[in-house]
Amino acid sequence: MPASLRYLGIDPGLRATGWGVIEVTGARLTHIANGTIASNDRLGVAERLVEIERGLIEVVETWEPDGAAVEQVFVARDPVAALKLGQARAMALLVPARAGLPVAEYAANHIKKSVVGAGHAGKAQIRMMVEMLLPGCGAETEHAADALAIAICHAHSGGANARIAAAILKAEAAR
Amino acid sequence: MPASLRYLGIDPGLRATGWGVIEVTGARLTHIANGTIASNDRLGVAERLVEIERGLIEVVETWEPDGAAVEQVFVARDPVAALKLGQARAMALLVPARAGLPVAEYAANHIKKSVVGAGHAGKAQIRMMVEMLLPGCGAETEHAADALAIAICHAHSGGANARIAAAILKAEAAR
Repeated sequence: MPASLRYLGIDPGLRATGWGVIEVTGARLTHIANGTIASNDRLGVAERLVEIERGLIEVVETWEPDGAAVEQVFVARDPVAALKLGQARAMALLVPARAGLPVAEYAANHIKKSVVGAGHAGKAQIRMMVEMLLPGCGAETEHAADALAIAICHAHSGGANARIAAAILKAEAAR
Repeated sequence: MPASLRYLGIDPGLRATGWGVIEVTGARLTHIANGTIASNDRLGVAERLVEIERGLIEVVETWEPDGAAVEQVFVARDPVAALKLGQARAMALLVPARAGLPVAEYAANHIKKSVVGAGHAGKAQIRMMVEMLLPGCGAETEHAADALAIAICHAHSGGANARIAAAILKAEAAR
């Protein structure tokens, strides 16, 4: 039996951060869990980041993934939106990296192409394909569905290769 | 003798995060320490954020500030720059907030006005005024000088009031 690997996909946002965990055994994908971490918008940004961090730590400790993947963002609506997204995204990068997991990043159109087959798929199409690829996953929210799509993309892109690449980068930097 | 309070100012950046700690006793300001946390640009963003976080944790543990202040950013050159800054800025907000410190945010022109007396002061003017207000501080870098300016602004703005405001906000949110 081939070894199984667990991947955590994260769709970061200050208001709601989606997450999804899948298991890959050879070419077979299995849904493990998904959810959404909401932050209290009556708190300041600093405290909301603490909430998101705490939620992600709990996900990593509970589901023990072997690797993580986050959407790579090139553009945002405007600098203000980009700054907010950057702050939430930092939690999605920090928590798995600090836990020693390799963190892969994928461009949005790469994720769409990997899951739906087209780089310009809409939200509804992504959700439908996530449900088809992970039957019965019942994604909690659109953010959780997006997070599962990122995890699927990571599996399709050969998460193991990404782990090796990360290890090489680390070894080179340590020289 | 009036009680002393220590404030940590942080000027976040992915490449270099400046920090400065000052002590406020009544109307007297004293320089305590300053420095710069550089991240290894051969590493991925996730690992660089871990480095910045680790550096800031060390600063908070070593200098035990009573409050922290970070520049509030409204605009950046472009969304890409804003995203990068947002990621580094998240560490500056997260680390003190997680340690239970109130984190204040000040607009750049408010900081300049508070330190130099003019909202559109240049880098050199800020540095000169920081050296005048904190004699012998010898700011390590421009980022460290900016961080000290943020701490001075926080002291001038009545850091204690900011602490009370944060406590009220927290109590309201907990209701």
